[in-house]
Amino acid sequence: MAKGITKRSEDYSAWYNELVKRADLAENSPVRGCMIIKPYGYAIWEKIQAALDKMFKDTGHSNAYFPLFIPKSFLSKEAAHVKGFAKECAVVTHYRLKNDENGDGLIVDPDAKLEEELIVRPTSEAVIWHTYKNWIQSYRDLPILLNQWANVVRWEMRTRLFLRTTEFLWQEGHTAHATRKEAEEETVQMLNIYAQFAEEFMAMPVIKGVKSESERFAGAEDTYCIEALMQDGKALQAGTSHFLGQNFAKAFDVKFANKDGKLDYVWGTSWGVSTRLMGALIMAHSDDLGLVLPPKLAPIHVVFIPIARTPEDYDAIRERVNPIIESLKKKDITVKFDDRDSYKPGWKFAEYELKGVPIRVAVGPRDLENNTLEIARRDTLEKQIVPVDTAEKYIEDLLEDIQKNIYEKALSFRERNTHNVDTYDEFKEIIKGEGGFVLAHWDGSSETEDKIKSETKATIRCIPLNQEAEDGTCIYSGKPSKGRVIFAKAY
Amino acid sequence: MAKGITKRSEDYSAWYNELVKRADLAENSPVRGCMIIKPYGYAIWEKIQAALDKMFKDTGHSNAYFPLFIPKSFLSKEAAHVKGFAKECAVVTHYRLKNDENGDGLIVDPDAKLEEELIVRPTSEAVIWHTYKNWIQSYRDLPILLNQWANVVRWEMRTRLFLRTTEFLWQEGHTAHATRKEAEEETVQMLNIYAQFAEEFMAMPVIKGVKSESERFAGAEDTYCIEALMQDGKALQAGTSHFLGQNFAKAFDVKFANKDGKLDYVWGTSWGVSTRLMGALIMAHSDDLGLVLPPKLAPIHVVFIPIARTPEDYDAIRERVNPIIESLKKKDITVKFDDRDSYKPGWKFAEYELKGVPIRVAVGPRDLENNTLEIARRDTLEKQIVPVDTAEKYIEDLLEDIQKNIYEKALSFRERNTHNVDTYDEFKEIIKGEGGFVLAHWDGSSETEDKIKSETKATIRCIPLNQEAEDGTCIYSGKPSKGRVIFAKAY
Repeated sequence: MAKGITKRSEDYSAWYNELVKRADLAENSPVRGCMIIKPYGYAIWEKIQAALDKMFKDTGHSNAYFPLFIPKSFLSKEAAHVKGFAKECAVVTHYRLKNDENGDGLIVDPDAKLEEELIVRPTSEAVIWHTYKNWIQSYRDLPILLNQWANVVRWEMRTRLFLRTTEFLWQEGHTAHATRKEAEEETVQMLNIYAQFAEEFMAMPVIKGVKSESERFAGAEDTYCIEALMQDGKALQAGTSHFLGQNFAKAFDVKFANKDGKLDYVWGTSWGVSTRLMGALIMAHSDDLGLVLPPKLAPIHVVFIPIARTPEDYDAIRERVNPIIESLKKKDITVKFDDRDSYKPGWKFAEYELKGVPIRVAVGPRDLENNTLEIARRDTLEKQIVPVDTAEKYIEDLLEDIQKNIYEKALSFRERNTHNVDTYDEFKEIIKGEGGFVLAHWDGSSETEDKIKSETKATIRCIPLNQEAEDGTCIYSGKPSKGRVIFAKAY
Repeated sequence: MAKGITKRSEDYSAWYNELVKRADLAENSPVRGCMIIKPYGYAIWEKIQAALDKMFKDTGHSNAYFPLFIPKSFLSKEAAHVKGFAKECAVVTHYRLKNDENGDGLIVDPDAKLEEELIVRPTSEAVIWHTYKNWIQSYRDLPILLNQWANVVRWEMRTRLFLRTTEFLWQEGHTAHATRKEAEEETVQMLNIYAQFAEEFMAMPVIKGVKSESERFAGAEDTYCIEALMQDGKALQAGTSHFLGQNFAKAFDVKFANKDGKLDYVWGTSWGVSTRLMGALIMAHSDDLGLVLPPKLAPIHVVFIPIARTPEDYDAIRERVNPIIESLKKKDITVKFDDRDSYKPGWKFAEYELKGVPIRVAVGPRDLENNTLEIARRDTLEKQIVPVDTAEKYIEDLLEDIQKNIYEKALSFRERNTHNVDTYDEFKEIIKGEGGFVLAHWDGSSETEDKIKSETKATIRCIPLNQEAEDGTCIYSGKPSKGRVIFAKAY
């Protein structure tokens, strides 16, 4: 490892950008706003995918695949939807290149213009509801519980690796139901799955809530979300689950015959999380030395580093630790034994700290003598000398402890940075200062929300599902309010 | 199930198209040439992905993700490459839509024209080798062994579900090496993995070979392939592995310092299989009743169908078979118990035959009395009465036997339909008639190959790797030849 990365306290944004690149997670591509996800970053994403995919399937969903391209006319069918996405669409207009006759190199062949332009999907409601029309005739065809893992494109003007990129990877669930109740239950079920995933796997506490009207998904009746707090006091929306009502069914004319033979429009939901979760994961836990990864999503759980001078030393160490490594592997613990002699132990220590490997085991000549290992945990950086005989159990327990500790740490950070606020002055002071989640009364109007946003950059992250009933007055307008909502500056 | 599908002997092509749709594998999308992969089809694709992904990782490869878009100028850098792909590219020219001022609805915003057009990737060599330039300085950075699972777009004029679609899903491996030898070994290793996968998982025998110059990948020095024979006597290329030489390294200026500090161009390979494998799988084994799936890729291994009239009957049957179902599940055998009373047993039998479920277990009142089950295998349609006590073992063994039998059947079909041919008349007769693989002498020239193709529609599928040395004369030109190559009409 060369020099360290910028400290969070110096420049949080620079810290993040450097960390993403130096830890080999991702880099910018030659196409503006698109990213290259490097193998180490992608290995984390694969773990995220595997865990979520299992949760989706355990709740009865299947995967399918719908086309990348959406005919332009489809997008117009749902009024709010088109308004939300038309301004940031990649548009395919031609289907062939040719060599310029004037020797100007490769040009777009003007004879290969599409009759109707195609949009690279920014999300797939339009093409999926068009398809559902053919799949649904009666209540017997319902519910449809589908998900797809796919790439999508939104032409963002300001991009940042993982957090906001022109192309990103995600999953999008699209379900169709016979009743409002069932669709609403599905929406909440998926929100709960996202929250459970965030807390159990990412070790990231989240608040479940509903978006205000102005932050709602384009085409939804209600957007549920999970919101997490990053170390710089800014919020990050980590997943959304939309109750679509009958909006898309009406736009695409999807009706079904109910048990009494009467025709009605189908009820819908959609829900998604994306590679943005990678950004959340990084910003929630990592420190000035590099990544801190929860064991459940770490591509490598334990790295063994021999402190050796001669080939004989390496051999002796290898022989000593091999049985432990083999038993750990049998327990699905991923172990790397880094015996490269081209790098010094100190370099390796720094490298695996940067990469966020949860446990480092160092073994030197003295350990061989004493039949011990030096076990260091990445989250607290504490080291412990452990007898070889008990190391396996120690490592197993430690992985569980790290997972739990990272979560607790993030939770206590959030608790310290969540404030009940009753005046606009205090609100502005906190938002301008340390940030965090600010719980305040709001009069429920988009107008007030917009004004607060333009004056402070803080937005309503959500109306929490567990909101306590409390009479109060809006911090901005002074109008009456029945409960606090969560404000924050956000990614 | 309504009426049956067209027989293979009547119209093989109609049989295929109907089967793909009726078995719920895929359907056409509103965008010309793109497909919707339905849940049952996608479940098979997920099994294909999982098996291949494991084989790639077991041989040291990691997954990564590169952008969907490629700047137009990148494509021009490798001369053969651009020639191969420029004619079938989806081109993104704009990044925004807007409402027409004349009320003409949603139009492409002329103010949002890209400075340089972007190509939707038809394959990713260009963007990946551009990236490798930044990643590779010295031999220490080599080899790079990456794969990505992605969608790609090639603007095909004639499309067929799975076999040839405008957008398809695939994996593309891209590796970089310090020596020609290592790159060549990688190319062959991946070919062997594809062959092993085709034979062990898809139960589809393949011939490994090298493409002639005219069938080579645009930008490769050598293209290796696996070729399978379909039931209509046509060949299907099921996977390719390309030795790129230093072509892309030269085009993108990717050099490395070797151990002596001397600069040299990097050696490359690329290799891929796609959702085309789904087409191969269907056409290799299925029959006039529907799909025949090898157990290793079947989403459902065993379906239990109760033959019952009353709720009491259902309960009694459920109670009897539940212990078997539970033990099968523990062995990773996927079981479905279809106790829907809205469909009759006969309908269900036909439905699961159509879907290719390898084993069907029927349980009726007489079985309850005799403590037996009726077990039917999809591949041969044979039925057997089996005592409940031995059913679990019977099913386990039967799955293995079906996997083996499907392979043997396809192998013996291929053997019966592989002909050594020594005259052009005989060649034309076979190609025009029953088809199959025709092994014939060829003079090695593209000219002869082209003429044979234009006269008979047969192409050289490959020069088999296990080609026997045999002196002969070209069936077309009469010129000398050292061994036979494989001709066939192909998908």
